[in-house]
Amino acid sequence: MLQPLTPEDSPPSAVRLKAVAGPGQPEPTPALDALYRGFEQELLVPLWTEIGGLMPRQPRSQAQPHLWRWDRLKALAAEAGRIVPVGRGGERRAIALANPALGGRPFATPTLWAAIQYLMPGEDAPEHRHTQHAFRFVVEGEGVWTVVNGDAVRMSRGDFLPQAGWHWHAHHNAASQPMAWIDGLDIPFSYYTESQFFEVGRERISAAEKTTPERSRAERLWGHPGLRPLSQPDAPTATPLLAYRWVDTDRALADQLALEAEGHAATVSPGHAAVRFANPANGRDVLPTIRAEMHRLRAGASSLPRREVGSSVFQVFEGAGTVTVGERTWTVSRGDLFVVPSWVSFSLTASADAGLDLFRFSDSPIFEALHAHRQETTA
Amino acid sequence: MLQPLTPEDSPPSAVRLKAVAGPGQPEPTPALDALYRGFEQELLVPLWTEIGGLMPRQPRSQAQPHLWRWDRLKALAAEAGRIVPVGRGGERRAIALANPALGGRPFATPTLWAAIQYLMPGEDAPEHRHTQHAFRFVVEGEGVWTVVNGDAVRMSRGDFLPQAGWHWHAHHNAASQPMAWIDGLDIPFSYYTESQFFEVGRERISAAEKTTPERSRAERLWGHPGLRPLSQPDAPTATPLLAYRWVDTDRALADQLALEAEGHAATVSPGHAAVRFANPANGRDVLPTIRAEMHRLRAGASSLPRREVGSSVFQVFEGAGTVTVGERTWTVSRGDLFVVPSWVSFSLTASADAGLDLFRFSDSPIFEALHAHRQETTA
Amino acid sequence: MLQPLTPEDSPPSAVRLKAVAGPGQPEPTPALDALYRGFEQELLVPLWTEIGGLMPRQPRSQAQPHLWRWDRLKALAAEAGRIVPVGRGGERRAIALANPALGGRPFATPTLWAAIQYLMPGEDAPEHRHTQHAFRFVVEGEGVWTVVNGDAVRMSRGDFLPQAGWHWHAHHNAASQPMAWIDGLDIPFSYYTESQFFEVGRERISAAEKTTPERSRAERLWGHPGLRPLSQPDAPTATPLLAYRWVDTDRALADQLALEAEGHAATVSPGHAAVRFANPANGRDVLPTIRAEMHRLRAGASSLPRREVGSSVFQVFEGAGTVTVGERTWTVSRGDLFVVPSWVSFSLTASADAGLDLFRFSDSPIFEALHAHRQETTA
Amino acid sequence: MLQPLTPEDSPPSAVRLKAVAGPGQPEPTPALDALYRGFEQELLVPLWTEIGGLMPRQPRSQAQPHLWRWDRLKALAAEAGRIVPVGRGGERRAIALANPALGGRPFATPTLWAAIQYLMPGEDAPEHRHTQHAFRFVVEGEGVWTVVNGDAVRMSRGDFLPQAGWHWHAHHNAASQPMAWIDGLDIPFSYYTESQFFEVGRERISAAEKTTPERSRAERLWGHPGLRPLSQPDAPTATPLLAYRWVDTDRALADQLALEAEGHAATVSPGHAAVRFANPANGRDVLPTIRAEMHRLRAGASSLPRREVGSSVFQVFEGAGTVTVGERTWTVSRGDLFVVPSWVSFSLTASADAGLDLFRFSDSPIFEALHAHRQETTA
Repeated sequence: MLQPLTPEDSPPSAVRLKAVAGPGQPEPTPALDALYRGFEQELLVPLWTEIGGLMPRQPRSQAQPHLWRWDRLKALAAEAGRIVPVGRGGERRAIALANPALGGRPFATPTLWAAIQYLMPGEDAPEHRHTQHAFRFVVEGEGVWTVVNGDAVRMSRGDFLPQAGWHWHAHHNAASQPMAWIDGLDIPFSYYTESQFFEVGRERISAAEKTTPERSRAERLWGHPGLRPLSQPDAPTATPLLAYRWVDTDRALADQLALEAEGHAATVSPGHAAVRFANPANGRDVLPTIRAEMHRLRAGASSLPRREVGSSVFQVFEGAGTVTVGERTWTVSRGDLFVVPSWVSFSLTASADAGLDLFRFSDSPIFEALHAHRQETTA
Repeated sequence: MLQPLTPEDSPPSAVRLKAVAGPGQPEPTPALDALYRGFEQELLVPLWTEIGGLMPRQPRSQAQPHLWRWDRLKALAAEAGRIVPVGRGGERRAIALANPALGGRPFATPTLWAAIQYLMPGEDAPEHRHTQHAFRFVVEGEGVWTVVNGDAVRMSRGDFLPQAGWHWHAHHNAASQPMAWIDGLDIPFSYYTESQFFEVGRERISAAEKTTPERSRAERLWGHPGLRPLSQPDAPTATPLLAYRWVDTDRALADQLALEAEGHAATVSPGHAAVRFANPANGRDVLPTIRAEMHRLRAGASSLPRREVGSSVFQVFEGAGTVTVGERTWTVSRGDLFVVPSWVSFSLTASADAGLDLFRFSDSPIFEALHAHRQETTA
Repeated sequence: MLQPLTPEDSPPSAVRLKAVAGPGQPEPTPALDALYRGFEQELLVPLWTEIGGLMPRQPRSQAQPHLWRWDRLKALAAEAGRIVPVGRGGERRAIALANPALGGRPFATPTLWAAIQYLMPGEDAPEHRHTQHAFRFVVEGEGVWTVVNGDAVRMSRGDFLPQAGWHWHAHHNAASQPMAWIDGLDIPFSYYTESQFFEVGRERISAAEKTTPERSRAERLWGHPGLRPLSQPDAPTATPLLAYRWVDTDRALADQLALEAEGHAATVSPGHAAVRFANPANGRDVLPTIRAEMHRLRAGASSLPRREVGSSVFQVFEGAGTVTVGERTWTVSRGDLFVVPSWVSFSLTASADAGLDLFRFSDSPIFEALHAHRQETTA
Repeated sequence: MLQPLTPEDSPPSAVRLKAVAGPGQPEPTPALDALYRGFEQELLVPLWTEIGGLMPRQPRSQAQPHLWRWDRLKALAAEAGRIVPVGRGGERRAIALANPALGGRPFATPTLWAAIQYLMPGEDAPEHRHTQHAFRFVVEGEGVWTVVNGDAVRMSRGDFLPQAGWHWHAHHNAASQPMAWIDGLDIPFSYYTESQFFEVGRERISAAEKTTPERSRAERLWGHPGLRPLSQPDAPTATPLLAYRWVDTDRALADQLALEAEGHAATVSPGHAAVRFANPANGRDVLPTIRAEMHRLRAGASSLPRREVGSSVFQVFEGAGTVTVGERTWTVSRGDLFVVPSWVSFSLTASADAGLDLFRFSDSPIFEALHAHRQETTA
């Protein structure tokens, strides 16, 4: 079970204060000690002992940079595929990244959930819905369709599939191989801010919904560049487009690098192309709490080192290179996942002989919506 | 010091998994045990063991309803006034409400900070600024001026004084008595989402700034109903109006009850008048993360029981009555503070012989900005 | 009757083209003549003959600067009061300013209507509603109440009373003197863009509505600085506040000049204070198509000469001075009205011994909404 | 030259009033006559004589439904190609539709300009820019590239090419045949509201800009469904996408009819598919003042009769059918253009044996931005 926010071994009500020396701290005296006992009894905590931790000069993340290797994740997920059934109650065979500094919680960062999900041939994941916003990203494989409000959406390598909150969804594997992909959600943010709702749906979706179309209905309505269906006048707050296909993303990134080579402004910085997955109905982020992007670095190119308020999770999609997050540097290859905590500088470098494609998701929309976003290049 | 999110006695990296029986849980077997050891080693946590706690049917707040008595707070604050100096480092003589279910942290709710601040005659609190949004509300007393970006703002009973993030501010007590008031901030939210910045300013503000004007410059520019100064074309994201005076608030509430008595729609429900403090430049909440309101219940009247996503803190301003929050009911009088956790129903009742005025602040703007707000009346 | 857009003496279908010499004009030849006859027959007009008039380098208004003297207007309105009844059909005893360059139409500018309205003691103007947005401004007198959706709104010297489109409204004079005031509407804009609706209401409002309250219900709900009634959660597109009182406007202007004198940024330019009447629910203009402002110039002060896209109408409220609009300069006093056509520079100067207060309304919100607004100081 | 708003034969300042009998009209008497002479002298016009024309119960357009046949337009444009040069001064070989009820002005409707433009092989149209928003739509042919801020954009059958205000643009015909297309602009609206600016650019664009790429740089940056380039963080008020290609539009319409056939909600009404050209950066209309759409009716299908505030112009792109606008009904085929005045009901019917594709543009964004939009189905 999820570990509580408080140590098991102390009553929930415990306020424990001890006088500490330091700048701006009162002289430890019997009177001060008596005062602190009074505070404890009335469930009060003074600012002056806490301000250092509570109000740092700049974000000091409790999370830490960490890398998960795709082959290890996949091996464990495959083993889970063998011995852990999928069904109502557990709902999904999803295995989450637990940031080493977040107390064993299944939180990649304080706001973001990232998990590998694994589905065996012919398996179904039962239908449910929740207010947490979600997406799937497919680093490899195919054969699974996710069924969103009855619309079957193909999942294939390179596809990004957003899943707005409160939409019914189930998954089924129509292929003869297992399939693995990553799920991203705002579970930690919803959990901490206590804003989440969840509802179970049907044990299994109808046979009619188990179709395996090349394109979902959502793509046929919303997947045409710059064209809005007149039958859908309202702009939903989350994207109505349920699949962003690799063929489009790949072409957009290639176009940017080609334009740059022709001398036009098109890339974020030399050799660094990037696109954001956007809601075609308003041009904003696909989900109210989650931003998703694909980045491409030309062979030998590096991104500008930068940091921003809020955290993100990267997955290497293709190629090879090295990534630096704060003090850590890793050599990465397909499928590897790593986290960038809030206000920690990071940079990406493609190997000299191969480019580097990375998928990224972050919590930036939260801070932009609240006017708390900041970012800077840290060269 | 602030207690860390993880138990002191376990290394930060610890993931601890034990097989549990239950719906949707895999059979405890040696293979499962081996799998879980593998998860632990790779810093992974499965969804199926956590989903109950992580994805409840509806918000189940870790905070709990609680009431703090004003006389106890004030007595302890006065004692702190005697023995705890105010100065650089500790910054403020502020004493925060620690929700009994939040592990001793100085958090009234998972997102909101509420504290009593106390300033002795002639005392100054040094200048600083931070991205956390703040306000002061004065339940009684006068004599302190808060100086915001050099603008001296009088603080008197009934006044609401918002303090947008990243504005320099200091306080000085120009009177011969101590003064107490409450501070509200989004410290817990900023702390958890790791988005805060802090900067220290001058040890003491200039003599020129230690004026004690009746009205601040902000009020003279922005405090006229429906009138915008042409010299300020841009709409700030937080309110430029630094003081909302009791004389105005009181009159607005009285007008609503009078209109109701004349048969017009003006109140939230019979006998229940309420106003929201708004940014005159855009009509929105005064602060991007905090909503502030004043409520008035006619003698004998009750508010409709309701609950909403997000938490709030109330302080009784005047009168007497009873309040019910979830399972708890309290008789309240001037200055008492209580918290309403997320999705917990609450109602307010004025005593038969006196009305009841309450100040309220909440984190609703966060959820509205992210399209996660929900509320309902609970008969 | 309103003169048609086309000369009476030519059939509506007439296209008349004659070859003209000039830069970019084709050689007049029999072939060209034949082509032009063909164009006429098919109802076609070439760009090349029209572009000079149609697409000027910058706005060249068809309207011209003009001044109307208040005493003359009032004398004629009083005479109309004697011989022209008010009632259904004619609807209002309103007499509009007809810009001398707009062909005798009752248009002060191509987009704005400005009229003096006159009501005799005890008279009623019948109820109607229309999508055209309107306001009343009172340069002198009192005694009339305008009844908006049943809410009786007092009209007194200096008050600005907006009247959003599609609200039922009537007027009644409860005093023993006649009263005159000015009406401003977007009639010409609605007329040209063909977007207007009109509905007649009751011949006369009920006795119950003929009350003469000091404050309207709208003011009691919305007239408190920075305070929003919780019972009105939705932000209307036009202001819900039906009266902006002179006592508030006067104080806001005085505050700005006082702040300037104290060395603070508060005025538009030295000695020039100004406020905009704003929708308290969103901080925007009171009406979607009309901006309204009050300007005050300190004795001897001048405004910076400026011009902007769109037109405006000024009325002198108090004091004396001179105004310059394009090539024209006038000495002005109480009640005088003048128009500033689009992109014509204007400036205001208060006499050396008296200040100058001016009411202004313009069509700026139209251009801001369509991202077509431009303005510049023309020194 | 453009006919002035006033009859040539009367001085611009003329106000002419004659007493008219009728409901709400004052008794014609010598006193009234004297009053009217006084009004004329002071440039005043009473509401009561004008209200019928000025404030109709609902929009009564001065424009009238009219149809222009494509073959006649093209023949005249071709003749113009032979004898009218293109160059600085005339700027473009554009021939505008003159609504028969708008006095011979080159206005298709009171707000919209529609013209056929014609360019001979090898011809260039010189560079200029203007604040009027424009687009080109290609009903047939190819070979011309329009160069927008140096970006060469191919023009081919079925393509929609928006041209936001104040962008430099020129055209060149790189083919061996002439090419015709239609231009749509908000010239009449800008002309009437007096908000337009115009600037001439280079006589001829550089050879380097005379490239003939398949895809423009704008398409390579912005033409990917749901993908935003990170290098372009700001959302422009007009679309940054300079070409909407027929292959995409055709597919989107086909998808809607196919979805409908499969039983899903996708069309506006049975057999009627439609898409709106949208700004990918914000999902809104491509231009602040102009909406553009493509409509497809299945063979034998009809649109629901409807009317709305504002006017529009249609061009038949493909197929055959009949269209009804108000009292008029026409049989239409490729290239035919017709206008729908404000609040006039219209419907579209495809012939039994062929579908009907129509391009439409309208001024709806103006009314939506000003909250004046209304529409209704008129069964």
